[in-house]
Amino acid sequence: MPDRCVSKQTLQRLPAYLNFLKSAQLKGSKYVSATMVAEALGLNDVVVRKDLSAVSKKGRPKVGYVRIELIRELEGFLGYDNSQDAVLVGAGRLGQALLGYSGFPQYGLNILAAFDDDPALAGAEVAGKKVLPMDKLPGLCRRVGVHIGIITVPGEHAQAVCDQLIKSGILAVWNFANAHLQVPEGILVQNENMAVSLALLSNHLKERFSTKGSAG
Amino acid sequence: MPDRCVSKQTLQRLPAYLNFLKSAQLKGSKYVSATMVAEALGLNDVVVRKDLSAVSKKGRPKVGYVRIELIRELEGFLGYDNSQDAVLVGAGRLGQALLGYSGFPQYGLNILAAFDDDPALAGAEVAGKKVLPMDKLPGLCRRVGVHIGIITVPGEHAQAVCDQLIKSGILAVWNFANAHLQVPEGILVQNENMAVSLALLSNHLKERFSTKGSAG
Repeated sequence: MPDRCVSKQTLQRLPAYLNFLKSAQLKGSKYVSATMVAEALGLNDVVVRKDLSAVSKKGRPKVGYVRIELIRELEGFLGYDNSQDAVLVGAGRLGQALLGYSGFPQYGLNILAAFDDDPALAGAEVAGKKVLPMDKLPGLCRRVGVHIGIITVPGEHAQAVCDQLIKSGILAVWNFANAHLQVPEGILVQNENMAVSLALLSNHLKERFSTKGSAG
Repeated sequence: MPDRCVSKQTLQRLPAYLNFLKSAQLKGSKYVSATMVAEALGLNDVVVRKDLSAVSKKGRPKVGYVRIELIRELEGFLGYDNSQDAVLVGAGRLGQALLGYSGFPQYGLNILAAFDDDPALAGAEVAGKKVLPMDKLPGLCRRVGVHIGIITVPGEHAQAVCDQLIKSGILAVWNFANAHLQVPEGILVQNENMAVSLALLSNHLKERFSTKGSAG
């Protein structure tokens, strides 16, 4: 089994490789090489070669990898082949969109249920998942052994929800709220921060227009 | 006016500072210091001091910043005070969630309209925004001078949509699709990649369980 310790940078590139390997343009190809992947994704050849060799030892000089095999190895490496259960807190608009998102199973994510204290949502079902009151959270997490918690509540409630999730045994938090969460050591927070993305987009436009000398 | 050239790392931290400055726990405070921000967010003192001095020259030794002033300066720096128009392509579940997300205006994002070629959505309105057919895209973008395009179509259609956006004058692409987009120089792609986030979460759990020796 290949070494599981890769850099975060490598890990962030792997889903793009997998996506390319599964893309329509490669449907008929038996083999795929690091060079092909690098060219298709506009990345450095050496970087891709190194990344892939961390995932699979089956690459052959001048031939490359058997595409289907490499897909399986990447999926295994990324944990997409091993379904992980998750709970979601906050069944508002964004929460409902995630509950209904059909793409998660292919990445090995299975949202078991949603939690929300809004009485208007009590007993509701969204995309076949139950919306439960918050006091049911610890019991379900402990009983099923859930380790991933998704936060889609407004920013001001995010820390309190995060604390409850951790008390319930959650080890990895996927945070969609605009809040900086404080967690004990050993707990991962993965931020999906729209505020940061918008700042980067806005800054890019600012720079574009200031260099073109056409800022308004 | 302070120097606008800051590192991407700094830019990524600024929204969290802003969020903390506007938080309920600081409601009564007139002044705020880099040390307070650093402590609240679990960051290094020196880093926060340097970040804030890039945004504002009004910090005073031992006193810090006037909180309300620093909020205004951060908002200006991040472009949140200057509303940017955007178009969204792909009015499926995720697209509809973004159209209905009430948090964007506070970050200076204004989604003008959505585009989708699904005839079932033609003429629909989501959260008060019209869903228009794709052939209306170039005209609207050019007429209004829209520079931000949001992609919420399935991965396999993302590159074609991206190309159409760029042809219509879009300079910054906010990509929610699981696809690696190729763009000409000078165009920014900001990826909101759930596949990457899930890989990071899954990898964290794997490491947690392998060090605890309780992997399944």
